[in-house]
Amino acid sequence: MKVGFLGLGRMGQAMAGRVLGGGHDLVLYNRTRDKCAELEKAGAKVAASMTEACRGREVVISMLTDDKALHEVVKDGIVPGLAKGAIHVAMGTHSVAALREIEAIHTAAGQVFISAPVLGRPEAVAAGTVTIVAGGPKDAVAKVQPLFALIGRRTFDCGVKPEGAAAVKLANNMVLGCAVEAMGEGFALTRKYGVDPAAFFEVMTDGLFNAPAYKVYGSIIAKEGYATAGFTTALGLKDTNLMLAAALSANVPLPSLNVYRDRLLTAMANGEGDLDWSVIARVQARASGLK
Amino acid sequence: MKVGFLGLGRMGQAMAGRVLGGGHDLVLYNRTRDKCAELEKAGAKVAASMTEACRGREVVISMLTDDKALHEVVKDGIVPGLAKGAIHVAMGTHSVAALREIEAIHTAAGQVFISAPVLGRPEAVAAGTVTIVAGGPKDAVAKVQPLFALIGRRTFDCGVKPEGAAAVKLANNMVLGCAVEAMGEGFALTRKYGVDPAAFFEVMTDGLFNAPAYKVYGSIIAKEGYATAGFTTALGLKDTNLMLAAALSANVPLPSLNVYRDRLLTAMANGEGDLDWSVIARVQARASGLK
Amino acid sequence: MKVGFLGLGRMGQAMAGRVLGGGHDLVLYNRTRDKCAELEKAGAKVAASMTEACRGREVVISMLTDDKALHEVVKDGIVPGLAKGAIHVAMGTHSVAALREIEAIHTAAGQVFISAPVLGRPEAVAAGTVTIVAGGPKDAVAKVQPLFALIGRRTFDCGVKPEGAAAVKLANNMVLGCAVEAMGEGFALTRKYGVDPAAFFEVMTDGLFNAPAYKVYGSIIAKEGYATAGFTTALGLKDTNLMLAAALSANVPLPSLNVYRDRLLTAMANGEGDLDWSVIARVQARASGLK
Amino acid sequence: MKVGFLGLGRMGQAMAGRVLGGGHDLVLYNRTRDKCAELEKAGAKVAASMTEACRGREVVISMLTDDKALHEVVKDGIVPGLAKGAIHVAMGTHSVAALREIEAIHTAAGQVFISAPVLGRPEAVAAGTVTIVAGGPKDAVAKVQPLFALIGRRTFDCGVKPEGAAAVKLANNMVLGCAVEAMGEGFALTRKYGVDPAAFFEVMTDGLFNAPAYKVYGSIIAKEGYATAGFTTALGLKDTNLMLAAALSANVPLPSLNVYRDRLLTAMANGEGDLDWSVIARVQARASGLK
Repeated sequence: MKVGFLGLGRMGQAMAGRVLGGGHDLVLYNRTRDKCAELEKAGAKVAASMTEACRGREVVISMLTDDKALHEVVKDGIVPGLAKGAIHVAMGTHSVAALREIEAIHTAAGQVFISAPVLGRPEAVAAGTVTIVAGGPKDAVAKVQPLFALIGRRTFDCGVKPEGAAAVKLANNMVLGCAVEAMGEGFALTRKYGVDPAAFFEVMTDGLFNAPAYKVYGSIIAKEGYATAGFTTALGLKDTNLMLAAALSANVPLPSLNVYRDRLLTAMANGEGDLDWSVIARVQARASGLK
Repeated sequence: MKVGFLGLGRMGQAMAGRVLGGGHDLVLYNRTRDKCAELEKAGAKVAASMTEACRGREVVISMLTDDKALHEVVKDGIVPGLAKGAIHVAMGTHSVAALREIEAIHTAAGQVFISAPVLGRPEAVAAGTVTIVAGGPKDAVAKVQPLFALIGRRTFDCGVKPEGAAAVKLANNMVLGCAVEAMGEGFALTRKYGVDPAAFFEVMTDGLFNAPAYKVYGSIIAKEGYATAGFTTALGLKDTNLMLAAALSANVPLPSLNVYRDRLLTAMANGEGDLDWSVIARVQARASGLK
Repeated sequence: MKVGFLGLGRMGQAMAGRVLGGGHDLVLYNRTRDKCAELEKAGAKVAASMTEACRGREVVISMLTDDKALHEVVKDGIVPGLAKGAIHVAMGTHSVAALREIEAIHTAAGQVFISAPVLGRPEAVAAGTVTIVAGGPKDAVAKVQPLFALIGRRTFDCGVKPEGAAAVKLANNMVLGCAVEAMGEGFALTRKYGVDPAAFFEVMTDGLFNAPAYKVYGSIIAKEGYATAGFTTALGLKDTNLMLAAALSANVPLPSLNVYRDRLLTAMANGEGDLDWSVIARVQARASGLK
Repeated sequence: MKVGFLGLGRMGQAMAGRVLGGGHDLVLYNRTRDKCAELEKAGAKVAASMTEACRGREVVISMLTDDKALHEVVKDGIVPGLAKGAIHVAMGTHSVAALREIEAIHTAAGQVFISAPVLGRPEAVAAGTVTIVAGGPKDAVAKVQPLFALIGRRTFDCGVKPEGAAAVKLANNMVLGCAVEAMGEGFALTRKYGVDPAAFFEVMTDGLFNAPAYKVYGSIIAKEGYATAGFTTALGLKDTNLMLAAALSANVPLPSLNVYRDRLLTAMANGEGDLDWSVIARVQARASGLK
């Protein structure tokens, strides 16, 4: 397939690498050209502009850090460059509002828009173990599925609206945040009754909660290993802002999200913004008079 | 070991059966004698009174439905019947306040007290797949471990205070309740964006939440199968009362528990007390304007 | 009217004093007899037992500290002593569950039961400025209204069930607790924007919140005068337990109460149990990174 | 004083009218010119453009509906038109983020910026009974105080940052929202115990809560008079978004606000967006199984 790729940060490079590895005809563009160097060596072409990277492509994938970058790339690059009927797949995490606007812009330009964020870190993309949540017209999603199959091990159908994919990614992260908050409450309660955190960790993860969410974060909490941040409190808070915005736009009250988010805000207010976001469990411990 | 067993409801019978199967000398007592029939056939003796069931036993296990029953059995049966230095293991789910009082009573009588509730249903006890959370003096717990090894597949050390075991069981259930509440919020949010609940279920359980808590309850929520109650809203609410009491006694604020509990109360108020407690997800859906 | 009075703590003495001042025939009983001395001098008779204090009385008023004391007094004194058709008015703050049970006991004994707690402190009782919330049979409430008119400046009709009066008193206190919590949030937010707490206090109490609840507690918060406790955090927490129990019994979710109560628990956990309960505003300030 | 006035909606007209009534030299501008007609008759001049309305003025007052309008007016009108050292007073309700940006723009242009929203409705402005919360440099606030004295009956000093005034207005509204939510919880609890809402209303407003917030909204709730909206749920929700944004920007967790806001979202989701926002009490009643 003739594929364009815009946005070659860590995630973008890993994804583009897998697409190239599948034998597709790949044209890249990145503002900082040297991010393209490795893929160019491996056989990808590098375009001189965003528009050129879209010209004649059947599919253009974007992997951008935020809504602002997506808006600019769509307006200045993809809309003028991409042919009618061709597909833009946005694989970054964007707000539902931005996706709705971008969809309208592409529709007006006769182009097709899919939102397809991945669940997983860059290392997991490189290893092919991430999953993809995709929202967009069924036939378009079907058409790009061969690319998704190279990037991730499984694609989930999130309906015909691009914003559905964002809702799923955000909701999945929200369920994680709430799980960590609940664990924090459980650890605090049991500690106050003289229970070793390691024991409560074992009870949870041996049984009902034998899953990565509890193993990874329960372990950090039990060991109070917040200093090495996989994802900081500050970033976690930004993520919850997207969740709140999605909920506002659809009129959904989310009381558990609010509890989780208030912990993040408390951590921020107390100088813990650069620690791993699971430090919310320490916020709970403090509120419980521990330490 | 010479073992007495008081309280032969479904759970008690399953536990006593496994102790007997391990070749121990077992004496039973139950208010309704016919609950002992099957175990009697299998070789257990049946005592004429609680006190008699405790006489000369090294260990007495109680499996009672609530604090009131435990108090009566301890006062009228175990304290007068059990020898000094012998051990009472309470395997029911009791409040931390009751366990604290019972511990004081046994200590005053020169007897040893352990709290050791199981995590799992009667079927799982019969199959030997439950786990046990045990709190009490280390040497006493070590002494009864051969019995625990017959009843469950693993014992977790919850510290030297009996109430620690109750705290762990309650906290584990609380983490479950909060997980279901969070799932309910996630399902409502994604449904409002046109996402099939089955897809969101797959996303969660394929990845971070690949665990029984999410598979079992996520499946009920996705299919709205609340009519067949594994555990009712009314019972769930009772359980949260024990959690709140444990938190009050230790001065621990539990905001996520409160969110979860408010959903149970809302379900109760709207005639959903006899449904499966995961119907709280439907309460969330209604609040979100769904259906 | 022939009136008996049981329970002569500070509140009881103030109330009994006003009844006596109205010219009624008053018989007192208190476990510690010397609490009756002053009223005896003023003309009241002192009975040798609870039962005797109820004998031949048209109305017996109890002013007791808790449910346990009320249960004992009813069982050992009022039920055996009071004539059929005579009235017991419980003016202490009791749980709805206790009131329900006591009502059933009196009904079985052919006696009439009213719950009528006062809103206000002992000084206000002495000054006649408190109000009374009364629940019970209409004709019985009408009959004792002359006594209420001596004790308080106004009586509110809380319906025909004694527990209705308790619900009103608890709900009124709950609305107060939530107001103080909300103020605490408002003070924290404005302080973080450089606003003098005294200014925010003025804005509130000059306008929409020109009422004792905001003036009294807003002033304490603005000055951080938590050391002189009018009512401690520990007592405030006990009060919220009665609210929660009333809500549980009627299946009412109360999310704002939970927020308020979690602040009290946090204050308790951090050694602030003996301070004025409005210290919850300091808990909020800390969570916001202030001071 | 030479005063310019931009934005003549209902609020703007009422304010400008009072300034004119004080004998000041007033130049108006409004996109829709006919909104200026009445004031023109009364002696005000009408400028042909925003810039012209600012030219040579000592003070320009803006009363605009939202941040977007404020940004445009500042960029296209006030910054180019207003002299160095002259003052812009924004009297609309704006986000703290917008005020911070506008302040920076004015500072860069050598102009002075004050934020001074009013507390009260247009009718109250016309009657001169509103109050003003003002944030900005002390000498500038002092200079415009004669104008504030015409518009409102009292000015509150919210510190030297314009955003402080917004924080105070938002916090005051938040305290109101939380009060109404708490009342809704109190009404639901007491109704479930058979208490007439009118009685609970009397209890509250006779005592601790003898203030407009409780009298106005308690009365609406007691009578379920939500159909005549003073301020709709939809507008209330918008207001809470500004509160949340202010809290986010200052890292302040606001759990009571979240409870209140979740009620608004639930009302929105259930078709109650056009009713009076105090309909959140009906949301609570429904959750409690009432009606």
